[in-house]
This record gives sequence, structure tokens and C-alpha cells, in this order.
Amino acid sequence: MPEAFERVSVINLGLEGFADAARDQGAPATNVDWRPPAGGDPDVLAVLERLWGRHGDRIAAANAEATARIEACRPMAVGVRRAGDELPWLGEGPRRLLHSGPPITWDRVCDPQRRAMAAAVVFEGWAPDREAAYRLLEDGAVELGSGNEHGHVGPMTGVCSPSMAVWLVEDADAGVRACSTLNEGPGDTLWFGVGGDVAIERLRFFRDTAGPLLDRLIARCGPVDVFGMAAQGLNMGDELHMRSQGTGNLLIRHLVPGFAALGGEETAAFIAGNHHFFLTLTMAAAKCASQAGQTVPGSSVVSLISRNGTDIGVQLAGLPGRWFTGPAAPVQDALLREGYTEADAALDIGDSAVIETIGLGGMAVAAAPTVASFFGGTAADTAARVREMAEICVARSQRFTLAPLDGVGTPVGIDARLVVELGITPQITTGVLHNSSGAGQIGAGIAHQPVPPFRNAIAGLADALDAA
Amino acid sequence: MPEAFERVSVINLGLEGFADAARDQGAPATNVDWRPPAGGDPDVLAVLERLWGRHGDRIAAANAEATARIEACRPMAVGVRRAGDELPWLGEGPRRLLHSGPPITWDRVCDPQRRAMAAAVVFEGWAPDREAAYRLLEDGAVELGSGNEHGHVGPMTGVCSPSMAVWLVEDADAGVRACSTLNEGPGDTLWFGVGGDVAIERLRFFRDTAGPLLDRLIARCGPVDVFGMAAQGLNMGDELHMRSQGTGNLLIRHLVPGFAALGGEETAAFIAGNHHFFLTLTMAAAKCASQAGQTVPGSSVVSLISRNGTDIGVQLAGLPGRWFTGPAAPVQDALLREGYTEADAALDIGDSAVIETIGLGGMAVAAAPTVASFFGGTAADTAARVREMAEICVARSQRFTLAPLDGVGTPVGIDARLVVELGITPQITTGVLHNSSGAGQIGAGIAHQPVPPFRNAIAGLADALDAA
Repeated sequence: MPEAFERVSVINLGLEGFADAARDQGAPATNVDWRPPAGGDPDVLAVLERLWGRHGDRIAAANAEATARIEACRPMAVGVRRAGDELPWLGEGPRRLLHSGPPITWDRVCDPQRRAMAAAVVFEGWAPDREAAYRLLEDGAVELGSGNEHGHVGPMTGVCSPSMAVWLVEDADAGVRACSTLNEGPGDTLWFGVGGDVAIERLRFFRDTAGPLLDRLIARCGPVDVFGMAAQGLNMGDELHMRSQGTGNLLIRHLVPGFAALGGEETAAFIAGNHHFFLTLTMAAAKCASQAGQTVPGSSVVSLISRNGTDIGVQLAGLPGRWFTGPAAPVQDALLREGYTEADAALDIGDSAVIETIGLGGMAVAAAPTVASFFGGTAADTAARVREMAEICVARSQRFTLAPLDGVGTPVGIDARLVVELGITPQITTGVLHNSSGAGQIGAGIAHQPVPPFRNAIAGLADALDAA
Repeated sequence: MPEAFERVSVINLGLEGFADAARDQGAPATNVDWRPPAGGDPDVLAVLERLWGRHGDRIAAANAEATARIEACRPMAVGVRRAGDELPWLGEGPRRLLHSGPPITWDRVCDPQRRAMAAAVVFEGWAPDREAAYRLLEDGAVELGSGNEHGHVGPMTGVCSPSMAVWLVEDADAGVRACSTLNEGPGDTLWFGVGGDVAIERLRFFRDTAGPLLDRLIARCGPVDVFGMAAQGLNMGDELHMRSQGTGNLLIRHLVPGFAALGGEETAAFIAGNHHFFLTLTMAAAKCASQAGQTVPGSSVVSLISRNGTDIGVQLAGLPGRWFTGPAAPVQDALLREGYTEADAALDIGDSAVIETIGLGGMAVAAAPTVASFFGGTAADTAARVREMAEICVARSQRFTLAPLDGVGTPVGIDARLVVELGITPQITTGVLHNSSGAGQIGAGIAHQPVPPFRNAIAGLADALDAA
């Protein structure tokens, strides 16, 4: 691990003259917009020194193992099922809901996520209307759980209740499985925190019509090789987070003989009209791969980045199940719909950043030059963003490659040490919700994740390794 | 038209010291791999002088008009019909076949096209087997016609017989329509010049099953906006000639609700498994736009480039219906399947180059970085090829844009004067057929069209303008 040791020796020089010394040695840091490592914070530098030095070999091996497991995982969508049947915690309790982000109590839940929860309560028939639903939630009569702790990932508000239809995605060889709700499309939906009558009616359509049909379609046409399609989708202008159109069409192509055999015009029309329909498949598959890469003691690879519009929570592959949280960030570089300003924008929300932990989305923006317009950039800007993300990643993906960059792999395996040292956090392409009105999505942009949770995570890792 | 006149004044300097003089003046020619204009041929230079000089204004206006008509044309696929019902010449005669390329007599037809013609004769029931079919063709008992002269365009061998199913594509406002056979996919097919039993059986499937169903699907789901889909397909990794996968999936997305309503599993599976299914839609639409841009007296815009594996034929928008022919070229930069060499390769064949005349295919390769591998190139090479094509084109497309090049339009409106002057011919991404064995497609590559037909075309245009 010569590179790791070289980093340590650079840090040991102290802060005075650091930049020049690093440049003299041709260290990687000289190639970037240079800042003192970890903002020059001596406590953090001490943690980094332990992680690059004493524990460097072990972490490097663990990170290689975690990344190799992520890359080897091949999640297949095997059906669409009732959430309560596939997610034990959700199905066991009398009244339980899952939500995006780290665990949270009702009093701290943000407005769009509250609206989604209330709509789910009405959908389940636990309350006759939204007012009654809010009372149940306030009274604690509905238990809340973090989806990520119970086998589920959800985009934006990420609410899942027992009767909802969910994708079941698994890699039996890797021993991982995850569920995610069917994507509702735009407008009056739960994921965007609107949760009106149209949204609830659509959940019934998913439960009674689209979900059961999709389950039969997959049984007939075969499981969906999610990452196989995603790899093709990268050659079809998708980065698989903000844009999944090309990949979604591959799913339709996979299912069209089944539609011809089984019927289901309404479901076919819904899927054909929903450009984001593939999103939750990618998320569930990414959650599988992320789980496959977990439980590698000593790994500083980020296995989870998840937000609930109030908090962001981070987990490391080496410390699975342990949350490192902080305040959620605003979405930057955002394009907002006419009539809305930054003051209307909810904070960053959703479990979808799991996509970035396995080498897609913000790691792959060069695949999607049309997405460049979301942050006012050019194709060259998307290439530069990929290069920047590579600076904080352990490896380049073998399966996800970028033809516009002549076939280089996307960066995969975010190393929390590099995030903290370089002050470069993962960039998450995401939507922007209204923070109070129930207007739903008002824009889209890039969420630059805050550094503190990553800083706390590497401190926790250093302590765990010292104690081991 | 200052640029045109500047070109003339450069040419008038004579050949001695031309390169230095041009460089001193900062002429465009200095930016390219410089050669004397038109290879220094004084007769051709004299023609060019007439076309840039005396007739320059008229040609510029005509070219602007022709290109504007191409760009304004919006061809819609309105159904799939029996060829003989939609193509009068083909339907009227007792035994007639259409083929790709300029008109040709049986004795000069290349091997793969002969095989396709014989298979069509058997398919029509005019002969019981291929041996008898060959005898009929040799005896002149089957009349041959150039598809381009009778409203049809076909890929590769491009054979069409009365009972075949064809796309009907039209722009009623522009008063244009064109047909093209359904794409047969890979393997034993007519378009690749195999024409075995499997190929003939597939034609029956098209005639009896897929064609009638597609006609009903379009009636139910609405006409197919071919160029609207193509414009989206450019953002999905397609250049629409060698690669149409993303665009083909848009067609499937358009039709999937119809499949769910009407059934047709076999047809759905065939389309889903055929990566080139959209190709002939693009060709028929391009033929519509090319026709819309024709009949503009004085225009030097190339309205047709078509090959039959023996001859190449070129037409100009200003001289519609008049062929300028020469020997077909070998396909260069070809990747051949293992076991085959250049000696096995048939010459360039097919009507598909009509795609390049309206700003797609070789004009748009930067949209399809995965296609770069077909000529051993990088994404930068695809961008350079687009820039080179722009040197011989009148305009940039408004509707076909290249996101990897930050949204610039594809070059559209090939100016035959520039082709001759610069010695840069359109590059056609195309397949390579076996020249004698009936093995079908043995590779793919780039067909650099030969200059002489373009040289003859501009001489014809100069004479016509002088006489006018």
C-alpha cells in the first residue's frame, strides 16, 4: 500500500509548508483545488493518521474486499410483492411505516415526509382521512422505522406501508435482498410529499393491478438483471439516478412479450409514461450490493448515505448498522420551477444515494450529457465531476463503464477517509421538494453531502480498530 | 455569400503556392489535412468556379431552401401495409421486384442481391424453388426496378416484392411518402443476401402476422413520429444507422399498451429481440425528407446516395431523378468476423445512406460513442468525424442535436460542390456482406463514398444552370 504510506508521510510534515512539500513530492493532492487536508483540523488529522498509518494495510485490504463484493453482486428483480409479506418488521406490527433516511421521531419529521406518512395511513385504512391520520401519527399510534434498517429503500420521502406493492430484488448467492416501492411518477404522489387522493388511488392501482401483473410478467419473462440493464443504460444516456429513461425502456422491452400474452393495458401505459419507473429497481439493487459489501471489519467504504429531509445518516462497510448522522443539506446547483425560490426548498431527502455508493448516479454523470443542463454544465463538466468523484473512491467499476470517456469504469467504493481528507463529499443528483405547501417536486439539482457525518464515521472506525 | 466567393478567389490563385497562400489568408482549408482542391483537376476546377461564382448566389439560395425543406419535414409512420398496395409500379406488373441502389440489369447484380431476389421470387410463389427462381430472373421474366425510383428504400440488398409487409411513412403537409420493408434482424435474411428457408418463412410471418398486427397497433397507439423518436435516440447512444437500439426501445414503449390490448406475443418477442428493428423506419422517414428537399432547381444538395453492391448512384436536389453513377466502393475501416478477410467482402450496398443525407448516421456518430469501437476510435474520434462531415454540409440541424458536443446540431445538407472541392465524401456506417457464399453479414465498417459520381453530378448541375 505505498500510496497510503505516502499520504501519511505527507500529513506528518505538519501544516506549515504542506502544500509546497506535497507538490514537491508529486502527491495526488497537488492535482486538485488544494485545501489543507481535513480543513487543517488537528483532531481529524490525528484520526486520519491512525487510519492511513497504523491501520492502513488492514483498511486497504478490507476496502478492496468490500468493493469486490459490491462489484460481484448481481441483484435480480424476482417479483413484485406485498411489502408486509416480504419485510418482516413492517408486516409484524399492527401499524408500522417505513421511511427514508436514518431513524426519526414524528416531532422531527419534515413536512413532505409527514404528508406521505399520513397518506399511507389513509391508504392502509388505519384512519378515514388525513386529519385523523395526523392524530394517529402524533399520538404514536403508528410506529416509524428507517427503511434501511428493515430491508427497504425508498426515493425522496421513501414511505412504505404493509399493503404497498414493492419490487423484490435479491442476489441469492450473496445472501442479500431488498425491496423498494414502485415508482409513482410525477405529480400527486407520496414520494414527492403530496399524498392527495390521486396518490392514494394510485397506490391502490399498484396494490390491486400493476403489482400483481408485474409479478406475473416477471415470472413469465424472467427475472430482471437490474445491473445488466443499468450497464446498458449507461450507453443510453442514463446515469441511473436523475435519468433512467433508456434503462426503463430496456425493462419495457424485456416485458413486452409478457404484456402481449397477459394483457394489462393500463399498467403498460403507466410504465410507458413514467420516465422514472426504473429508479426504484436501481435503488433496491444498489441496496443489495451495498449490503453485500458490508460486514467487512475495518473497511472505510461508505455503505449507506441516506437522508430524511431532517438528518443525513452515513454508515460504513466496516461498522454495519451504526449510524453517523448530522443535519441534512440543502440541494445546491438546483434548477427550480418558475415561481419557486430556495426558501421553498426542503432539505435533501431520500434513500436514493445508495445508488452513488455502488458506482452509479453522481458517479456516472458523464454517461448522461443531457443531465449536464441540470447544473448548467457542459459534457466536459460531467467528465470533470466523474474525475472528482474518483478522487474519493477506492476503485473503478468493471461493469459500469463510460463510453464518452472511452470506456473507463465509474468510480466505486467511496472511501470515507478520502472524503474527510479532501473535503470532497459525494454528489447526489436528486429532486427538490417543497418544504411546507405540499406542492411536491419543485426542482432538481445536486446535493453535496455534508462532511461531519463522514468525520464522525472515520473517528468511530479508528476507535473500533484501536480497540480490536 | 462571402465565404463562397472567398473560396473562388482562392481557387483563382492557381495551384502553385496555393497552400501557403491559403494559409496566409486563414482560409478554412488550412484547418484540414490539406490537398489541392478537386485534386487539382483543371476541368473540375472550372466547373467549381462556375458553381461558386456565376451561379453561387442561386445555388446558395436553393441549398438553403432544400435544407430548410429537409428540416421541416416531419414523417410519420401511419401503418404497415402490403407493398404492392402502396407502391403502384410494384403492384401493377405481373412479376416485379424492387432493389437497392441505382437501376441495374440481372447480369450485373451482385451475388448477395441475386440471392435476395431469388428468395423473393420463391416467397411470391412465382417459382417453386431457388433454382427455378434464378432461371426466371435470368430469362427476364421478373422485372427489376430501383426502389428509390418507386417510393421504396431498402437496407443492404433492399429487395422488396409485392406481398411483403412495408412501413408506410408520410408527411402529408410536405406531400411525400415512402415505404420500407420490416427489418428482418440478423442471420438468414434477404437484406444480408442469404435468402434461405428461414428467411422466406420470416417474410410470411411479417406478411401474415407481424405486419397486420403492427398496422393495428399504430392505429390504436397513434402514428410513429419517426424523427421525434430519432432526436431522442441521439440522446440514447444511437446515431440511427449502425445503432438504433435506444430509438427502437422508444418504439416499443410507444406500442406496449397496444400489445397489452391486442396481444401478439410472437411479434413482440421478435421486435424486442431485433436491435435493428427501427432502421427501416429511419430510412423511410429519411426518404420522405430527402424527397421534400428535392425539386429545388439549382440546388447542389445531395438528395440521394444509393448502392446496389455493383454501382453507386447519386442524385442532387436540383436535378431530381437524374442518376450519377460509378463503381460501388469497398467498405473500409471494417471489423470482420473471425475467419473472413477483405477478399470475402461484397462492395458497399444499400439505400440506407439516405439516412446520411438528412443529418443522421455518419453525420451523428458523436451521439454513439459505443459505435466508435467499430472503427477502432475514441469518443474524440467520433467528434472529429462529425466536424469533418460539417465541412461538406450546408447547415447544422435544428432538430438533431449532439449532447456530447454540448448540443450542436448534426451536419445536414451535403453540398456536392464541397464534396468534390475538398475530396471529402460522406461516410456511411454500414454492414459488410459476403460477396459469393451466401454467408450474409460478415462485418461492419465505414463506407467512404467515391468522388466521381459527385464530380459528374456537379458537372451536370453546372451545365443545367448554364442552359437555364
